[in-house]
Amino acid sequence: MTIPKNHKPALGVCYYPEHWPEAMWGDDATRMVAMGLSWVRIGEFAWSRIEPQPSEFRWDWLDRAIQTLGDAGLKIIMSTPTATPPRWMVDRYPDMVAWDRHGRPRGFGSRRHYDFSHAEYREECVRITTILGERYGRNPHVHAWQLDNEYGCHDTTLSYSPVARAAFQDWLRDKYKSVAALNDRWGNVFWSMDYQRFDQIELPNLTVTEPNPAHAMDFRRFASSQVVAFNAAQEAALRPLTDAPLLHNYMGRVTDFDHFAVGANLDIATWDSYPLGFLEDRSDRDVDFKRDHRRCGDPDFQAFHHDLYRAVGKGRWWVMEQQPGPVNWAPHNPEPAPGMVRLWALEAIAHGAEVVCFFRWRQAPFAQEQNHAGLLRPDGKLSEGGDEVAALANELAGLPNLSIKAARTAIVFDYASQWAWEVQPQDAQFDYFRLVYDLYCGLRRAGHSVDILPPTTTDFGDRDRIFIPGLFAWPQALRAAVYGFSGEVVMGPRTGSRTDDFKFPMTLPPGLAGLKVTAVETLRADAHVTLQDGGMIQIWRERIESTWDVVEADLDGRSVRLSNGHLIYWAGWPDAAALDRWLGGTASDARHRETVSGATSIDYMTASFSVSP
Amino acid sequence: MTIPKNHKPALGVCYYPEHWPEAMWGDDATRMVAMGLSWVRIGEFAWSRIEPQPSEFRWDWLDRAIQTLGDAGLKIIMSTPTATPPRWMVDRYPDMVAWDRHGRPRGFGSRRHYDFSHAEYREECVRITTILGERYGRNPHVHAWQLDNEYGCHDTTLSYSPVARAAFQDWLRDKYKSVAALNDRWGNVFWSMDYQRFDQIELPNLTVTEPNPAHAMDFRRFASSQVVAFNAAQEAALRPLTDAPLLHNYMGRVTDFDHFAVGANLDIATWDSYPLGFLEDRSDRDVDFKRDHRRCGDPDFQAFHHDLYRAVGKGRWWVMEQQPGPVNWAPHNPEPAPGMVRLWALEAIAHGAEVVCFFRWRQAPFAQEQNHAGLLRPDGKLSEGGDEVAALANELAGLPNLSIKAARTAIVFDYASQWAWEVQPQDAQFDYFRLVYDLYCGLRRAGHSVDILPPTTTDFGDRDRIFIPGLFAWPQALRAAVYGFSGEVVMGPRTGSRTDDFKFPMTLPPGLAGLKVTAVETLRADAHVTLQDGGMIQIWRERIESTWDVVEADLDGRSVRLSNGHLIYWAGWPDAAALDRWLGGTASDARHRETVSGATSIDYMTASFSVSP
Amino acid sequence: MTIPKNHKPALGVCYYPEHWPEAMWGDDATRMVAMGLSWVRIGEFAWSRIEPQPSEFRWDWLDRAIQTLGDAGLKIIMSTPTATPPRWMVDRYPDMVAWDRHGRPRGFGSRRHYDFSHAEYREECVRITTILGERYGRNPHVHAWQLDNEYGCHDTTLSYSPVARAAFQDWLRDKYKSVAALNDRWGNVFWSMDYQRFDQIELPNLTVTEPNPAHAMDFRRFASSQVVAFNAAQEAALRPLTDAPLLHNYMGRVTDFDHFAVGANLDIATWDSYPLGFLEDRSDRDVDFKRDHRRCGDPDFQAFHHDLYRAVGKGRWWVMEQQPGPVNWAPHNPEPAPGMVRLWALEAIAHGAEVVCFFRWRQAPFAQEQNHAGLLRPDGKLSEGGDEVAALANELAGLPNLSIKAARTAIVFDYASQWAWEVQPQDAQFDYFRLVYDLYCGLRRAGHSVDILPPTTTDFGDRDRIFIPGLFAWPQALRAAVYGFSGEVVMGPRTGSRTDDFKFPMTLPPGLAGLKVTAVETLRADAHVTLQDGGMIQIWRERIESTWDVVEADLDGRSVRLSNGHLIYWAGWPDAAALDRWLGGTASDARHRETVSGATSIDYMTASFSVSP
Ligand SMILES: [Zn+2]
Ligand SMILES: [Zn+2]
Ligand SMILES: [Zn+2]
Repeated sequence: MTIPKNHKPALGVCYYPEHWPEAMWGDDATRMVAMGLSWVRIGEFAWSRIEPQPSEFRWDWLDRAIQTLGDAGLKIIMSTPTATPPRWMVDRYPDMVAWDRHGRPRGFGSRRHYDFSHAEYREECVRITTILGERYGRNPHVHAWQLDNEYGCHDTTLSYSPVARAAFQDWLRDKYKSVAALNDRWGNVFWSMDYQRFDQIELPNLTVTEPNPAHAMDFRRFASSQVVAFNAAQEAALRPLTDAPLLHNYMGRVTDFDHFAVGANLDIATWDSYPLGFLEDRSDRDVDFKRDHRRCGDPDFQAFHHDLYRAVGKGRWWVMEQQPGPVNWAPHNPEPAPGMVRLWALEAIAHGAEVVCFFRWRQAPFAQEQNHAGLLRPDGKLSEGGDEVAALANELAGLPNLSIKAARTAIVFDYASQWAWEVQPQDAQFDYFRLVYDLYCGLRRAGHSVDILPPTTTDFGDRDRIFIPGLFAWPQALRAAVYGFSGEVVMGPRTGSRTDDFKFPMTLPPGLAGLKVTAVETLRADAHVTLQDGGMIQIWRERIESTWDVVEADLDGRSVRLSNGHLIYWAGWPDAAALDRWLGGTASDARHRETVSGATSIDYMTASFSVSP
Repeated sequence: MTIPKNHKPALGVCYYPEHWPEAMWGDDATRMVAMGLSWVRIGEFAWSRIEPQPSEFRWDWLDRAIQTLGDAGLKIIMSTPTATPPRWMVDRYPDMVAWDRHGRPRGFGSRRHYDFSHAEYREECVRITTILGERYGRNPHVHAWQLDNEYGCHDTTLSYSPVARAAFQDWLRDKYKSVAALNDRWGNVFWSMDYQRFDQIELPNLTVTEPNPAHAMDFRRFASSQVVAFNAAQEAALRPLTDAPLLHNYMGRVTDFDHFAVGANLDIATWDSYPLGFLEDRSDRDVDFKRDHRRCGDPDFQAFHHDLYRAVGKGRWWVMEQQPGPVNWAPHNPEPAPGMVRLWALEAIAHGAEVVCFFRWRQAPFAQEQNHAGLLRPDGKLSEGGDEVAALANELAGLPNLSIKAARTAIVFDYASQWAWEVQPQDAQFDYFRLVYDLYCGLRRAGHSVDILPPTTTDFGDRDRIFIPGLFAWPQALRAAVYGFSGEVVMGPRTGSRTDDFKFPMTLPPGLAGLKVTAVETLRADAHVTLQDGGMIQIWRERIESTWDVVEADLDGRSVRLSNGHLIYWAGWPDAAALDRWLGGTASDARHRETVSGATSIDYMTASFSVSP
Repeated sequence: MTIPKNHKPALGVCYYPEHWPEAMWGDDATRMVAMGLSWVRIGEFAWSRIEPQPSEFRWDWLDRAIQTLGDAGLKIIMSTPTATPPRWMVDRYPDMVAWDRHGRPRGFGSRRHYDFSHAEYREECVRITTILGERYGRNPHVHAWQLDNEYGCHDTTLSYSPVARAAFQDWLRDKYKSVAALNDRWGNVFWSMDYQRFDQIELPNLTVTEPNPAHAMDFRRFASSQVVAFNAAQEAALRPLTDAPLLHNYMGRVTDFDHFAVGANLDIATWDSYPLGFLEDRSDRDVDFKRDHRRCGDPDFQAFHHDLYRAVGKGRWWVMEQQPGPVNWAPHNPEPAPGMVRLWALEAIAHGAEVVCFFRWRQAPFAQEQNHAGLLRPDGKLSEGGDEVAALANELAGLPNLSIKAARTAIVFDYASQWAWEVQPQDAQFDYFRLVYDLYCGLRRAGHSVDILPPTTTDFGDRDRIFIPGLFAWPQALRAAVYGFSGEVVMGPRTGSRTDDFKFPMTLPPGLAGLKVTAVETLRADAHVTLQDGGMIQIWRERIESTWDVVEADLDGRSVRLSNGHLIYWAGWPDAAALDRWLGGTASDARHRETVSGATSIDYMTASFSVSP
């Protein structure tokens, strides 16, 4: 699998033949093609209709659906249906469901009702994947495969079930070999937390006060590894049965598992982009921002994920589900401003998306998502979003092939750091994603395109500048890359502040010669540290002992920015004003607003990943 | 049972002979009569003193209490004690308690510790009701019977117990006959939620993400039906044993069961009116309103329930518990302003109440409600509220008989719509009760008396105007009544937007010829849609395709109000200013304030249900 | 044990030899002594290293640690390690853990994972205490013993386990003898809550609505008694084995058990004072106060606890853990302002502390508290706090011996009242600690030193003025002391408002001749009652019938303050402005702020308990 040198962006749609009378399929397919769509995703929730009873299969309808769609000229993304195990599966394995952190089983009746650690369910997934691969792996209409759907959505990565506990104990046995080693590396002496046997180790929920952070961190690593293994099992089953690329559709701001590790086994990364829903249900933006952007979304939120998943996909990425109108699941569900459905798709394409699929074809008249808009209304007429997609398809037809260039600036994003600082925030406001995202937005305001890099990066190439904020623990190779790089490397705050075992480094953080973080304080939201030249330090502030040059000090005379050759260290979390001063940004989002009202301009993306003909 | 052509309002009180030494009963009864009270309710929490051990009865004290009260000239409302099963009952049926939505049994130690679905407990209730009926059904002092107490109070309608699950499965079996029919009508294909057998269907709590709305809606219907059946069982047992009217005391803003359906089996509806407590613990009013009305309550809140329960009682209704002073159970428990206890009673009478009983006679010096005021203080002196009641009784003595006239304006109130939009709010702010109540308050500001009508209404009579806001699904007869009516019918927003099976209607909502709601968006609290002529659309806004006349459009040119002959449709949720413009209200509550400070005027009620001599 | 006539304040530190290589111990000890520290506390979390397997002991390291520290000249506070039972203990007694109020066991993996009611675990604690006492009770380096650590921390006093339920039933059997007596004294007739047998009585959690307050109150008394008994068991085991004083380290604002009752069996009270952490995580101060004091803490909060624990210790008290820099456990963890570590220690000494120990020696590089500052940084250099302590030791060396004088003013503080008003707040804002603390701060602003007195006080001595706010129920001897006192006694609001059985007194509160509280109302936060001469009544307001003199009435003409000879009654909760007017305070905290910026002055303490040479 190689990164394509150039590609022609295409559009697609998510479709559920099992939801509609067969008589409608042909017309639907014809209309899709007429609208300019070339891809169609099917099958990801259809297990109960493919295998209504154990080992009793219904292939007829699916065979005909594939035939109908394919014959119309559509390329099919076939999916494994493992995100929605049928009811009979839960009867067979009552312990297959995940448990929440309060110790309650999360039952059947919606979706994602499985524990990633459940070995028999994983085997069932391999079985259905194999059967599907054998049937459709070489089908000429099937041009890609999606494995499962939205891993981790609805907080499903972490399970506190007995099944997860047993698997966690195995994972620990494998990692530490002896319980004495575990006691030592976790520092269990601290509160007499020493174990005598691995089978004594509980999951880190429902303890009296907080558990050992080393314990909690290993649980987070374990949980991520279970997602990776679950996905890898399907990949291994399917790979020999097809030549089509394998992919998964990730979500926005789901950080409970290491997407780079899952992506390592797949060919393309895709994600499900819901700009308005995400603004309402998972954005840290303030209330004014949310009000002003309620119909266009936070442009940087999409941009960040586009750049992130381009990295997860090793250069190849799609949008698998693009919001086409109001959704049903956010606290408030407004309509997009006119033109936004088109603009979101163009933003993705500008960041290098090969395909943008819309979710979904026709609004469903039943079940959980009946208020989720589609390209068609329930009565079959085009929705407002459908109108825009039809026009967009036309517009894209005239575009030349596009290729992807590396950005001059990159940020290292590390899922383990997210877990570490959730385990040990030290301030109720501290969040790794937010720290990285603040920086990302600052770089965008300053007009930079940004690449995201995994913490396994060993070489930064010929870029100008690398940022490594808030890194939990240094991978040896990454630190080598920092020292070997010719461009600028900006680190801190909190970078390299722990060892892999969740201990303080013996020589104090951040593990860079000539610089020590001797103490840390965290700051109330109403008590920032003002900087002489503008802006403030918020949330996190370090005390430095150093031989480096002081680039900037605060009014207390304490170092805020330091440099040593190509290395730069930030000893606190800058607010937007400080960040703009440091990065040369404008601290204004006038550009974004202008576009939203205009809605035909693509100024929206001028600071986005560059599009070249 | 016919609606009385006219009645003379009377007062009463709730009394607990089992709480006081028998030596006090006679004097208490004498004082009640002297104060002008004619009714006394007893017995609703006395099971453990009537039957201290299974089948071991203590009648002596109750016989003498009834004799003493009756001999003093009081009419007794006897109650079944089924809201407080004795401890030995829970020993006998440990699974009789309800479970909360987190899956925790709700134990013995307060009250209402039973699951409406528990068959054996229901039989025990029939048994004790029968025994009480046999003993006192023809007692000349017993002039009415209350069944149980405050159904649904303390969130007890919905239970997630194994007992409830089994009963729900039976209910589904009975409704759908085949599991295939259920799968089809629920749309279980959506996420492979198909069932093979009814006994696989869990209650809709503790799912990973939201359950199928059709599943949740059926659970709500089931739960309501259990309350209806529980009450009907007692009614059936008691009816042959007495000629006295049967009644129940409902609560304020309890909407978990269909009060019309419970009321169908009873002769009189009563409710427990706590204006100050309800303002603090269940009102949507804003903080300024709550502060300004903290000593008088929200006048419309009582008025709405008076009108609602008049409908539930098919014209006959009482206040069974009227707040007499500070209560104990709200977050803040202020004293009523001087005169309010009298004024609340007059407000009820103006809405047609036949009897107003106060809760309670003497403040209890022990157990849960020891800070709840009574007409007497614990030391036996009259409280401030007691003083007002004594004066009021005098005042009422001079009143002529009253009769009830139908209001020119009516609102259809549908409990199922409350459940539906709790299941599928589409916006965190959406609440059916609030939508209806906003309208009710607007009509009151505009000077209208209002009747509440059930969704089973088949004929609107000779009224001027009917409102049907937010109706979940059309009963066929109600839609026929709309088309057959000669007055104005105002519908929307969200009216008729689903089928009974919780699906989109094939032809799009609202199911009125020539009008389609093609899309819906919901609005943040800080992002209303301003209307040119004043006021705003909030929370809910629809997109209309229609051949109707546009009465008003918003600044985007989208229809807000439309008309077609006598039919009117509102395509959004108006705020108070828009509502006042549309209904001719004043958007001022000066009238209410004035009355509260004056406290002797009955201007308070000028817009209330009319009182005629 | 007698109260020392005078003492020379000393400093100490908490140390964990088990956390560090033995090679470091000697140098650590030498540095402690060089820094001027004379006390070192060890061992309170070391059970798993003392007894790694049941009955398999490792004494070598502990023997040598004691020897090393003692030889360096340090006085050792030896601790029983019972706050952190080893994992094998939980294997042996799986039912030894407490259950939270939701019914979930609180598992192994942090600390305090035991139920105070678990008989076998209590025996295990007696066993390890005895073994430690036998080994080190006469060791010349061991100068004090700490039993367990921070009873009640992490909400561990109240357990809802089956073990606790059985123990509670035994406790009730013992208190009431017959279930009929319990039914009568609890008023179980109220909602048919009568019991037939003690074993039917559940713990008062998970009831449908609130349980009987008498039930809840007895549970609170029971829970407190279990802490007292747990501590007494260790004390009884240790007493014959040592002549050193026994002590415990209490926490800030932990009120779930009666500290006076625990303290009755001990020789010295100590507490763990974290001014910045407590300001952020358990202070009722408003957001402006918290921002302004974020680096110095709320000075009165420490002062109150100093005075409280001086009473608990019958005159003898220490600070066992003093915050030395940022901590790790509050929502925000700022650095102390320069000078505060010294000033906090001086404040304690000014209130009579004999010893101030700092927590901890060296910042731990592993486990839960790795972000908790010590006197040393992880790399062994002095932290900012360490610097201040070294200077302070020097400063203290020049101080003469100090002695403690009784204050002219005292407040009666009653843990049972805290429980009672948690059980029955009557207003969401009502909190007994806050009521007492508001008064305490008012007295401090007015320049008074304050003694805290237990409710068992029988004689107020020759003081000027006694305050008894919010007392739940009168102990007979305390009421006698009130009448027998020659100085002024200020009571109310809510004082004496219940009997021991949680009933209204027959003659109405407060149980003082000539004065009756006839009604109570509670007030929203936005609806105070303004007083003509300044200030307001907030939260709680009483209606009085009285022959006493009215000192002050509100604008409604209702009595606010009354007097009868030396007795004064307050009929409401005064805000700070009213309190300052009544007490002569300044309502300004300028003094505190001034000191914080200066940081070398001891003006901070001028209103503190007096220090005399
Ligand atoms: Zn999706
Ligand atoms: Zn009631
Ligand atoms: Zn501590």
